[in-house]
Amino acid sequence: MDWGTELWDQYDTIEKHTQSGLELVEKYVKFVKERTEIEQNYAKQLRNLSKKYNLKRSSKDEPECRFSSYQSFLDLLNEMNDYAGQRELIAENMMMSICIDLTKYLQELKQERKTYLMEAKKAQQSLESTYKQLDSSKKRFEREWREAERAAQYAEKTDQDINATKADVEKAKQQAHMRAHVAEECKNDYAAQLQKYNKEQNQFYFNDMPLIFNKLQDLDERRVRKLAQGYILFSDTEKHVMPIIGKCLEGITKAGTNVNERNDSMVVIEQSKSGFERPGDLEFEDYSQGINRASSDS
Amino acid sequence: MDWGTELWDQYDTIEKHTQSGLELVEKYVKFVKERTEIEQNYAKQLRNLSKKYNLKRSSKDEPECRFSSYQSFLDLLNEMNDYAGQRELIAENMMMSICIDLTKYLQELKQERKTYLMEAKKAQQSLESTYKQLDSSKKRFEREWREAERAAQYAEKTDQDINATKADVEKAKQQAHMRAHVAEECKNDYAAQLQKYNKEQNQFYFNDMPLIFNKLQDLDERRVRKLAQGYILFSDTEKHVMPIIGKCLEGITKAGTNVNERNDSMVVIEQSKSGFERPGDLEFEDYSQGINRASSDS
Repeated sequence: MDWGTELWDQYDTIEKHTQSGLELVEKYVKFVKERTEIEQNYAKQLRNLSKKYNLKRSSKDEPECRFSSYQSFLDLLNEMNDYAGQRELIAENMMMSICIDLTKYLQELKQERKTYLMEAKKAQQSLESTYKQLDSSKKRFEREWREAERAAQYAEKTDQDINATKADVEKAKQQAHMRAHVAEECKNDYAAQLQKYNKEQNQFYFNDMPLIFNKLQDLDERRVRKLAQGYILFSDTEKHVMPIIGKCLEGITKAGTNVNERNDSMVVIEQSKSGFERPGDLEFEDYSQGINRASSDS
Repeated sequence: MDWGTELWDQYDTIEKHTQSGLELVEKYVKFVKERTEIEQNYAKQLRNLSKKYNLKRSSKDEPECRFSSYQSFLDLLNEMNDYAGQRELIAENMMMSICIDLTKYLQELKQERKTYLMEAKKAQQSLESTYKQLDSSKKRFEREWREAERAAQYAEKTDQDINATKADVEKAKQQAHMRAHVAEECKNDYAAQLQKYNKEQNQFYFNDMPLIFNKLQDLDERRVRKLAQGYILFSDTEKHVMPIIGKCLEGITKAGTNVNERNDSMVVIEQSKSGFERPGDLEFEDYSQGINRASSDS
C-alpha cells in the first residue's frame, strides 16, 4: 500500500498534506526558537542575580570572607552562576542542533517537493495535450465520415437520376471515392492517435505518477523522521547537561556542609580579642595614712 | 575558648558581629526570594509557550491529530507544561522552606539578641551606679579626714595659746573629737562601698557578662547553622524534583520515538483514497459502424 497506487487520483490531497507537513516543521522550529529565548532570559536573570549578591572586586579582602557562613554564600552564588551557564548551553545547543539544522533540511525538502510537483504537472499537461490531439483527430474522423457518406449518397442519387449526364455521374462517383479515401485516412489517423494516447495514459497512471507520488511519500516520511529526531533532541539537549547541573547542586550542598559555626566563633575571637586581663579589685585609697605622713613631714 | 572569656571587653564587636550575622540571613532570604521570582517567571513563560502552540479545545477533533508527527508534538508540549509545573514547585518550596521559615527564625533571634543586649546594658549601668556611689563615698571620706585633721590642728594650737580660755580649749577639743569620729565613719563607709563594688565588679566581669556573651555566641552559632541549612535547602529543593523532571524529559523522548512515519503515510491513504480504479484504455468510437447501422435503419 503506497501513495502511488492508493492515492493515484489524489494529487491535491498529496500536495496539501506534504505542504502541511513542512509547515509543521516550520512551526516546531519557531516553537524551539521561542523556547531558547525563554531559556537565555532565565540564564541571564540568574547570572545577574549572582552578580548582584556577589562581592565587588575591590572588597574581596573584606574580613567577612573569613566567616564560613559568608564564604559559603559566595560559593553558592558561584555555583548558581555555573548553573546559569548550563542553561545557556541548553539554549545554544537547541538553536544549533534543532532550529538551524531543521531549517536547512526544510529548505532542501521544499526544493525537492517543488521539483516533484512540477514533474507531475508536466506529465499531466503532456497527457492533456495528447488527449487534445486524440479528440481533434476523432472529431475530424467523424466529420470526414459524414462527408463520405453524404458524397456516396449523392453519387447513388445522381446515378439513379434520369436527367443526369454521364459526366455528372462520373464526377459524383469520383467525389464519393475521394471522400471515402480521406475518411479512411482519418479513421487510421484516429486509430493511431488512440493507440498513442492509451499508451501514454497507461504510462501516466501506472508508471509516471505512481513514481512521483511515491517519491513524495518518501519525502514526507523523511520529513517525519527528521521531525521525530528533533523532538528527541529537545529532551536530549537538556539530559546532556543534567550531570553538570547535578554537580552544581552538589556544590551548593557542599557549601552548606562546609559551614562551621564553631570556627566562625573562633574567627571573631582571633579578629577582636584585646588580650587584656579583666580588671581586678580596686585598692583602698587610704587618705588617713597619706595625711599622717604629711603631718609627720611638717 | 569562648566569647565570654576572650572577648570580655569587646561588647561593641559582639554587638556589631551579631548584627551583621542577622543581616546576612536577611540578605540570603532576599536573594532566595528573587530567585523564586525568576523561577516563577520562567515557569510562566514555558506554560504560555505550551498553550500558544497547543490545540484550541474546539479543534481537538482535527484530522491532524491522527498523525503521529503532530500528536507527538502535542505530547511534547504537555510534557513541557508539566516541566513548568515542577519549576513552579521549586519556587514555591524555596519560598516556604527557606524564605518564610528563615524570616520567622530571624525575628525570634532578633528578639533574643535584643534581650541579651539589654541585660548587658542593665548590668553595665548597675555597675556604673555602684561605682558612682563608691566614688562619692571615697571623696566624702577624703573631705572629712581633711576636716578632722584641721580640727585637730586647731585644738592643738588653741591648747598652746596663752590667751585662750579653758572654755575655748575645751570647745576646740570637742570639735576635733567630733570631726575625728565623723571621719572614721566615712572611712568605714568607704571601705564597705569598696567591698560592695569589688564584689559586684567581680560578678560582672567573671560571671554575668561572660554568661551574656556566651549566650550571644550560642545565638550566633545557631544563626550560622540555620543559614547553612538554608544553603543546603537551596539545592535540595531542586534535587527533590529532579526525578519528575527526568520523567518529563523521558516523556518527550518517548513522544519522539512514538513517531511512526509509515503509519502516518497509511493514515493519509485511509483518509483520502477514493477507491476508484485507474482509468483503462479509451475505446475506439467507430463512427463508420454507427452510420452503417443508421443507414440500414432508414
